[in-house]
Amino acid sequence: MTKTNQGYFFEDYRVGQVLDHATPRTLHDGDVAMYQSLYGPRFALQSSWDFASQLGFKNPPLDDLITFHTVFGKTVPDISLNAVANLGYGEGRFLSRVESGDTIRSTSEIIGLKQNSNGKTGIVWVRTKGYANGDRPVLDYVRWVMVRKRDADAPAPDPVVPELAPTVPAADLYVPEGLDWAAYDFTAAGEPHRWGDYQVGEIIDHVDGVTLTDPEHMMATRLWQNTAKVHFDVTARPDGNRLIYGGHIISMARALSFNGLGNAQLIAAINAGSHANPAMAGDTIRAWSEVLDKAETETPGVGALRLRLVATKGEAGALRGDDGKYLPDVLLDLDYWALIPT
Amino acid sequence: MTKTNQGYFFEDYRVGQVLDHATPRTLHDGDVAMYQSLYGPRFALQSSWDFASQLGFKNPPLDDLITFHTVFGKTVPDISLNAVANLGYGEGRFLSRVESGDTIRSTSEIIGLKQNSNGKTGIVWVRTKGYANGDRPVLDYVRWVMVRKRDADAPAPDPVVPELAPTVPAADLYVPEGLDWAAYDFTAAGEPHRWGDYQVGEIIDHVDGVTLTDPEHMMATRLWQNTAKVHFDVTARPDGNRLIYGGHIISMARALSFNGLGNAQLIAAINAGSHANPAMAGDTIRAWSEVLDKAETETPGVGALRLRLVATKGEAGALRGDDGKYLPDVLLDLDYWALIPT
Amino acid sequence: MTKTNQGYFFEDYRVGQVLDHATPRTLHDGDVAMYQSLYGPRFALQSSWDFASQLGFKNPPLDDLITFHTVFGKTVPDISLNAVANLGYGEGRFLSRVESGDTIRSTSEIIGLKQNSNGKTGIVWVRTKGYANGDRPVLDYVRWVMVRKRDADAPAPDPVVPELAPTVPAADLYVPEGLDWAAYDFTAAGEPHRWGDYQVGEIIDHVDGVTLTDPEHMMATRLWQNTAKVHFDVTARPDGNRLIYGGHIISMARALSFNGLGNAQLIAAINAGSHANPAMAGDTIRAWSEVLDKAETETPGVGALRLRLVATKGEAGALRGDDGKYLPDVLLDLDYWALIPT
Repeated sequence: MTKTNQGYFFEDYRVGQVLDHATPRTLHDGDVAMYQSLYGPRFALQSSWDFASQLGFKNPPLDDLITFHTVFGKTVPDISLNAVANLGYGEGRFLSRVESGDTIRSTSEIIGLKQNSNGKTGIVWVRTKGYANGDRPVLDYVRWVMVRKRDADAPAPDPVVPELAPTVPAADLYVPEGLDWAAYDFTAAGEPHRWGDYQVGEIIDHVDGVTLTDPEHMMATRLWQNTAKVHFDVTARPDGNRLIYGGHIISMARALSFNGLGNAQLIAAINAGSHANPAMAGDTIRAWSEVLDKAETETPGVGALRLRLVATKGEAGALRGDDGKYLPDVLLDLDYWALIPT
Repeated sequence: MTKTNQGYFFEDYRVGQVLDHATPRTLHDGDVAMYQSLYGPRFALQSSWDFASQLGFKNPPLDDLITFHTVFGKTVPDISLNAVANLGYGEGRFLSRVESGDTIRSTSEIIGLKQNSNGKTGIVWVRTKGYANGDRPVLDYVRWVMVRKRDADAPAPDPVVPELAPTVPAADLYVPEGLDWAAYDFTAAGEPHRWGDYQVGEIIDHVDGVTLTDPEHMMATRLWQNTAKVHFDVTARPDGNRLIYGGHIISMARALSFNGLGNAQLIAAINAGSHANPAMAGDTIRAWSEVLDKAETETPGVGALRLRLVATKGEAGALRGDDGKYLPDVLLDLDYWALIPT
Repeated sequence: MTKTNQGYFFEDYRVGQVLDHATPRTLHDGDVAMYQSLYGPRFALQSSWDFASQLGFKNPPLDDLITFHTVFGKTVPDISLNAVANLGYGEGRFLSRVESGDTIRSTSEIIGLKQNSNGKTGIVWVRTKGYANGDRPVLDYVRWVMVRKRDADAPAPDPVVPELAPTVPAADLYVPEGLDWAAYDFTAAGEPHRWGDYQVGEIIDHVDGVTLTDPEHMMATRLWQNTAKVHFDVTARPDGNRLIYGGHIISMARALSFNGLGNAQLIAAINAGSHANPAMAGDTIRAWSEVLDKAETETPGVGALRLRLVATKGEAGALRGDDGKYLPDVLLDLDYWALIPT
């Protein structure tokens, strides 16, 4: 028994502790095809090697969310195996683009701890960094999770709550070197609207819906070597349902957002994110976006849109009730920066 | 709302109009593996790079239906997002073989329009061309679909009904350059029968059955970036079922046809095709073939069989009832030319 | 009808008969991604090309079970299309590692035949050999299956029951040339325990569970071109369920065994194996291992563990009842040698 990893509990963490996560993973074209099958993305930059080449990429970039899920997945055995809830994301920046053949690893530092008043759980803040092929940074983000205590009598740590920036400043967005959108082909991209066409406050309903199934989210979750048992084992929850990995909803909503945001080719930053309610097989996902902000970048032709991407399991509608809480049909509220031709 | 593509309606089309479809797509080995998982093909030419090399292919060809689905998928947002039914295919020719790494795009020309007598829908004929890596033609075919009108009061266009050849003449079949079947290994191919062994009028029951599931057809359909919502969203149809993309049935039937037609390695042409009835998860697909014609080609050792491939959801049996209509269990009636060693 | 392969029946086999199986198959990175999605393995040697390179592999090896399933799948049309049951495996040795781009073929020799007393079925023993790229041996194993007779009146053959070694001797285990585990990174591998930490008789509960679904096992089975109809067609069995390919259970259990055996990177031999009970969609698989033996190899730093890997559909528990028979919840009892750093 002792050889099996049961995961860490709240009292096992210390502020400043660094965890080198296991299982480096080489990503390749096979992962790209799986991702295509699972979500159906149509962003031309990841779909066509020719399109990528025309825009200054030596090798085609993988979807940014492949990077995100891979880096995230490595943290699960050390961070969230005993998590009750994944509470939020912040300060996420993509620092270079991952290509087929890159080997990804990740590390996390514990940057905050706060025991809950019930004494049974606590909140753990971690800053996770993903690297390609050794030491090339690819992603840096914070997430916080509620983690069970092994022993309710274990003493509470001194509370440390990190101050997180509400958004990544536009000046800090990483634009890939050599990116040149002068030759951008809007017909091939399938969307006429460019940076200048979007207005702050504008809402875009992405129209389409997808009804979720269990085999698909399990195949996705395994692709990222995410081992949280609630995603796989129907006996792990009282309701007998598998809980769908929140990243599955992010990817599905992002793919749906092509319809209206087809030129938002790259994700530059994740400002904030919440999985507002759990998703299960049978739910039909829809998505809408709100333009929260706009910014220019130092790279000519490349603009940034700050977008709120909301996934719901009903029709597009309000986000929060009168009590300020997310409505029950809201699954995801993700605030991110995308790069788009000006 | 206005940034979202709602698709074209019948009155939006004009004869002679050319549509450059969006989302070029680079196909690669990952797509081959997905195709293998979804259909289980056993044709040796696509299964083994060694086998392909022995027959004169510098690089292994992808399954011809991967090409077909990819070219077709690109047309959906422009042609069939508001389609009521996919009525038929004709004059389809494969013009070169697609390899791993090829980037596929497609264009369509509207070649016919005819409003239906109910005034609410009309038939649109399109000739679609697929290209690899810019301008290398890979596929050319006609399909016709019934499309909704946005406004029933929009005036009917002058009817133009294109005359389509009932079959592609054998003399027009494209045989890949350098194809050399002198070293063809019938043991490795798994099937002793060659061109001379098949008789016109012969029926081959492909014996095996496969019960369809929703996750599989959705994963297939997304692989081709086909966005028709009836395939994904259970709320899109009154019966609460997802409608299975017709191409899923074509690929499943073609894979089943290995058992009896294992040497029919390449599809050279699609003479005609109808999706006779809708398919849903839970249906068990079976297939049978009829040899409709035989022809020689200009390439020594390479013969052509014209085959009718029928997929049913019951046992193999009759195709049409006394009224001349397809029987309810018939899902697919596909007339194609295959290349097979003589 | 006669062009369709109906499979061989018991009376078609002769001791000494050699069958060259059809459909050579080139394995590549796409297959690796599918395997990742279906089972979620975390063994670092197959997950990371960097990790493989550090341990002396010029090219990253594919999971040994990909090799096993591919070699096995080719035998199905010739050996087990009319099988009632897959009775056991033995004398299995992996003889070289398969890489992306290798083309696999397999051959079998009939080494034993024994008609059952009911006169309707018989047991067929076959020794199957898998080769890469022509003649490089990759796998050699024996399996025995119960096969139906076409004609109950066909005369029984003289019974020949081969004597099989109960286990592959440790001295016969093949260790890849150039394997050098001096630089083995236990942190990246995700598991601190090495050869010296395991004791004969030790039991490891692998903790996690996975609830099976139909689409996943069908996608797996097609990947290996395994055509046995009971896996795909709900009308093939009286209970209306698809029977899950036994290899699916082997791969799932092996992936679960990472938790506790994460350094058991390579499978060197399959000493024995039984699919104790059928598995169906909805079953929740768990796994436990027992250390049966330990041995050193001639390669410095590389030890061998002989392991019993048991998959169950309930909690980990006893293997056999008082009557010596497998308990109904036991799905798999696999005895294998794994290579692990000393």
